[in-house]
Amino acid sequence: MAQYQPLTEETAVQLVIKLQYFREDATLKVKEIGDGNLNLVFHIVDEENGKSIIVKQALPYAKVVGESWPLTLERARFESSFLQKAAEYVPDLVPKVFHFDETLAIIVMEDLSSHTILRKGTIEGIIYPKLAEHIGTFVAQVTFHTSDFYLHPFEKKQLVKEFINPELCKITEDLVFTDPFFDHETNDFPDGIRDTVEQLWQDQELKREAAKLKFQFLTQAEALLHGDLHTGSIFVTKESTKVIDSEFAYFGPAGFDLGQFFANLVLNYISQEAHIEELEKRKQYQAYLVDTIRETWSHFTKQFTELWHSKGNEVYTKVPGTLESFLNKVWTDAVGFAGCEAIRRTIGLAHVADLDSIQDLDKQYAAKKKALAIGAEFIKKRKQIQSVEQFIELFHVK
Amino acid sequence: MAQYQPLTEETAVQLVIKLQYFREDATLKVKEIGDGNLNLVFHIVDEENGKSIIVKQALPYAKVVGESWPLTLERARFESSFLQKAAEYVPDLVPKVFHFDETLAIIVMEDLSSHTILRKGTIEGIIYPKLAEHIGTFVAQVTFHTSDFYLHPFEKKQLVKEFINPELCKITEDLVFTDPFFDHETNDFPDGIRDTVEQLWQDQELKREAAKLKFQFLTQAEALLHGDLHTGSIFVTKESTKVIDSEFAYFGPAGFDLGQFFANLVLNYISQEAHIEELEKRKQYQAYLVDTIRETWSHFTKQFTELWHSKGNEVYTKVPGTLESFLNKVWTDAVGFAGCEAIRRTIGLAHVADLDSIQDLDKQYAAKKKALAIGAEFIKKRKQIQSVEQFIELFHVK
Repeated sequence: MAQYQPLTEETAVQLVIKLQYFREDATLKVKEIGDGNLNLVFHIVDEENGKSIIVKQALPYAKVVGESWPLTLERARFESSFLQKAAEYVPDLVPKVFHFDETLAIIVMEDLSSHTILRKGTIEGIIYPKLAEHIGTFVAQVTFHTSDFYLHPFEKKQLVKEFINPELCKITEDLVFTDPFFDHETNDFPDGIRDTVEQLWQDQELKREAAKLKFQFLTQAEALLHGDLHTGSIFVTKESTKVIDSEFAYFGPAGFDLGQFFANLVLNYISQEAHIEELEKRKQYQAYLVDTIRETWSHFTKQFTELWHSKGNEVYTKVPGTLESFLNKVWTDAVGFAGCEAIRRTIGLAHVADLDSIQDLDKQYAAKKKALAIGAEFIKKRKQIQSVEQFIELFHVK
Repeated sequence: MAQYQPLTEETAVQLVIKLQYFREDATLKVKEIGDGNLNLVFHIVDEENGKSIIVKQALPYAKVVGESWPLTLERARFESSFLQKAAEYVPDLVPKVFHFDETLAIIVMEDLSSHTILRKGTIEGIIYPKLAEHIGTFVAQVTFHTSDFYLHPFEKKQLVKEFINPELCKITEDLVFTDPFFDHETNDFPDGIRDTVEQLWQDQELKREAAKLKFQFLTQAEALLHGDLHTGSIFVTKESTKVIDSEFAYFGPAGFDLGQFFANLVLNYISQEAHIEELEKRKQYQAYLVDTIRETWSHFTKQFTELWHSKGNEVYTKVPGTLESFLNKVWTDAVGFAGCEAIRRTIGLAHVADLDSIQDLDKQYAAKKKALAIGAEFIKKRKQIQSVEQFIELFHVK
């Protein structure tokens, strides 16, 4: 196939046989399991031996709230390149990429059907004991190994160039950093919280600080980011964590991925007021979420520090205090980005099921108002919030 | 000529005739006027009508202190692209580019023989009344029009990609931000100031802050920079200013160019203690230098502010306070970068004639020690130095 065309179940099977993932005479069962909005996702399994594989193909458009707009097929390249780069350092924390076809915008990759989407798991109150260690490791390894502290500046700049990702970044620039802070048509929230939202739009200090965070996102090419590390981009079991959907990858401020991850845990925490009725059980799960944030940061700093001392190639990595000042910047930025994510996931175009699935509308509105208040605090007070404990204090009721 | 070869006077003349800048029967006088270290520069003049032109060709190596190392010919593209981009907004402040040949690494450009190199003029104590306005305008126009405040993010990212300039940036990363802060073989200073230099190498706070500035230079793609805006990169007359030698152009922190410009004026100020013997005349010239710094910043902020309000396309340009916080960042960064430039021009590989031409060695050493002390203050106190007046107070003796 010399030019792009969407696969069917039939051509998907032909492709993987041609690529010799299965024997020609294998009995294959194929099912399209994508949501059809952005990508086609074919699950193909050999019924005899259970061997299975995923064929993911980008569609040349995105459907969101009924509308359709064109979207670059190049995002498959960003997704695949990120997964392959990450696999150099954390092969167990990303799906294996077996094949990438730029023309067809296809990635053939490891089947993760045994895993659950983390958002679904956290909404259901399930504990993943390895999550913090895995995400802390993932961010530390990818950040360090794509930063100027490790890479030769020529190699770093070459990677920056390869990961310049205008279309996907624009989505974040608009939907995370801009629209939710203004009365914009992409916003989406119930009338029951309109007063709170309008107050937020009047908060000039909040907007000034959001502007700074947006400018950082636009300009600071510190390290390769996943770019969309919410709980819907993470597949989990009790023992395993796999980061997926990396089409937003680009070089940006190192605190961004952690900020988005933290924000989605905080939103889940807030939503548990409605999801887990039994007080003690709720407190227990919320304590787990808080621990996950704490431990993720702790694993991140521990691993990043080890890498800095053992593999730092930049001469300033030997100067005492340089590591601390970098980690402080990452932390402060992460808190600010967490605030933007909390706000946009509450009133922007793309919501989280954690909040939207709250059936009792009074409780849903209360949770959403709380999310907005906490998000605004993260953004405005990020320089005063100097530790993970201070961060946690802002939303955690013991 | 299908592949690169260095021009001779003969082939340079053939080229400009072929390009129809002169008639075939014109009587042309040609002279190679470059210093031969980095580029060939041919000055070609029609003796009948006085029409003249410059042919500048990059050489595939650099000679510095006797050594020769390979250097990318691509720098001619960066130089030419920068001049052409700047000419969109400040056509009077850069030489006109008539022709660019990527294969030959040749730029055919306006002859500026009527101008003097600013460094020579300032060493001689000559006043250029338009300099501050011109440089303030130059930086404001280029910065604003290549920033995310003005450009569509797709266009900005495309430009960032085109101006990724690893080899020339590496020179700055090493020679401005690294080597002078360590006992490195590229450093060059007289034994008479060794004690002071060794103290500087022991200053851990200074190194930590220099590390932050280097990291900003490596990561913050805020706007297109000239990248080497010292007084040797500026041609002047009393009425005219032309910024040249833009091969270091890349997207970096917006305060960098101003910082380098300010530092070179400060170094000239310090050197005048030795160059202008008559006290009153010296004070007068130093007051002019101080005014030039003050007025450059003032013209920069005034023009940048006007552009922000009249042509800002980023929605946050409408939010009160956003401009001020950006200008504060540019100022703080400029002060820090000025400090790095002052130090590296004193003890690094590339010196300034302002200091090195001081014949009285006691005076030369005193001036160099002063330059180091002021440079270190700029770097360490940049966040406290909140105004141009505070900056000036650090070196200006009224």
